[in-house]
Amino acid sequence: MLKYQQIAFEIEKYIEDNSLQQGEKLPVLETLMNQFEVSKSTITKSLELLEKKGVVFQVRGSGIFVRRHKRKGYMSLLSNQGFKSDLEDFHVTSKVIELELRKPTQEAADNLNLTLNDDVYYVKRVRYINGQTLCFEESYYNKSIVTYLNEEIVSESIFHYIREGLGLKVGFSDIFLHVDKLNKEEAEYLGLEAGAPKLYVETIFHLTNGQPFDFSKVTYNYQQSQFFIQATNHLL
Amino acid sequence: MLKYQQIAFEIEKYIEDNSLQQGEKLPVLETLMNQFEVSKSTITKSLELLEKKGVVFQVRGSGIFVRRHKRKGYMSLLSNQGFKSDLEDFHVTSKVIELELRKPTQEAADNLNLTLNDDVYYVKRVRYINGQTLCFEESYYNKSIVTYLNEEIVSESIFHYIREGLGLKVGFSDIFLHVDKLNKEEAEYLGLEAGAPKLYVETIFHLTNGQPFDFSKVTYNYQQSQFFIQATNHLL
Repeated sequence: MLKYQQIAFEIEKYIEDNSLQQGEKLPVLETLMNQFEVSKSTITKSLELLEKKGVVFQVRGSGIFVRRHKRKGYMSLLSNQGFKSDLEDFHVTSKVIELELRKPTQEAADNLNLTLNDDVYYVKRVRYINGQTLCFEESYYNKSIVTYLNEEIVSESIFHYIREGLGLKVGFSDIFLHVDKLNKEEAEYLGLEAGAPKLYVETIFHLTNGQPFDFSKVTYNYQQSQFFIQATNHLL
Repeated sequence: MLKYQQIAFEIEKYIEDNSLQQGEKLPVLETLMNQFEVSKSTITKSLELLEKKGVVFQVRGSGIFVRRHKRKGYMSLLSNQGFKSDLEDFHVTSKVIELELRKPTQEAADNLNLTLNDDVYYVKRVRYINGQTLCFEESYYNKSIVTYLNEEIVSESIFHYIREGLGLKVGFSDIFLHVDKLNKEEAEYLGLEAGAPKLYVETIFHLTNGQPFDFSKVTYNYQQSQFFIQATNHLL
C-alpha cells in the first residue's frame, strides 16, 4: 500500500471511529499535513482517493466534507465481489455447487475475449447471508490469468485470493443488470418460487492492463438484496 | 466548458466517429498535444476525465486504450436523469400526472434535510420509451433551490432546465435500489400486472456544494430496462 493510500485509509478510519456525519467538515489541509506528517501533494492524493470512493466531497474555497450514505443494510453494488467491507454486520458464506476446468460457453468466450478452445474455471455457488440465500452465482475465470483454483479457495473470497494469492491487480469492470422473473433452477437454489422477481447482474472484471479475467452472472434473492451506489458528478 | 473538457469531448467524438474498439490504443501524449495544440497538463486532465467517464483506460508505461461497453440497448444507471446521451437511439417522452407545490412527506424531508414546514415541488410522471412505459417516477425538489417549475418544464428534461435554466451545478448522488413486486398503482401506470417484478431506485441528488435538492423514487418496467454501469478500480 502506497503512502497516500495508507493516509486515506487512516482518514476514513478516523471518520468511522468518530461517527462523523454527512456534511461535517474535516480539518483544513495544513492540519492534516501536520497530523500525518506528510507533504501537501500526498494529502491531496489521499483526499482525491477518498472523494473517488465517496467518503468525502470537496467544495472549492470552502473545504472538505464527510459524505456518507445513511442507510443500514445496503450493500455496495460496485463492490459485490468484496462483501466483507460492506457487510461487516452480516455473515456471508458460500456453498460450492460446481468447480470445473472446462471450455467456455460462446457467451463466456465472447465476454472474456477467448476462443472456444481456451480453458476456463467454471464456478457455481450459492451465497448466504445470515443464513438466508443471498444469490446464485456462475463465474468463468480465464485460466491463463487465474491459473489455479480449488474447492477451498472458491468456498471463500475468490477475489481476495486473486489479489493476495496470485498478486493480480484488479482494475475496472463493466456491469450489466436487469430485472426479471426467476426460472425454476434459480428459484430452487434461492429457495423462492419460480416467477418471483430477481435482480440479474452480469459483470466483466478486467485487470488494470485491460484484460478481462472473470465473467460472472449473479441472480439475487430480491428479499435479501438492497444496494447502494455513490455516484460522483462526472457520471451524471 | 473548460478547455480540457472541450478536448475530452473531441477525443470521445473521435473514438465514436472512427468506431474504435475496446482495447485499441490511442496516439501517445505528444501526438495528442500537437493535434489539439494544447499543453501536456491540459491533455492529461482531458484523459483523466475520459478515464473517470469510462471512455478510456490508462496502463502505466504502456499507453491509453479505448474502453467501451459492447452492448446495445442498455441505459447508464448512473445518468438516469439524462436519458438523452444513452438513449440516442430511443425516443423518451413523459406524461405528467401531477405537479404541485406542497409540504414534503416525512421521508422526503429526511432525505432532503428539510423540515415538514419547508416547501417542495412534487412531480409525478410516467416516462415512455418507443411508445412503451419505461418508468413511473415521483420526485421532490427543494423549492429553496429549485425555485420554479411548471407543467411545460416537467414534461421535458427537468435536469436540463436545472442546469441550463437555473444555472445550478449538479454534483454527486446517492442511489439506493432493490427489486420487488409491483403494487396496484405502479402496475396500472406501467401497464403491467400487479405482482410483476420491478426495479425500484431511490436517488438523492446533491449540488456540488453538498446540498441535496432532489429526492426521486423511480419504478422501472422490468421489460424495458436494462442498465449498465462502468466501475473503475477504486470502487472495487
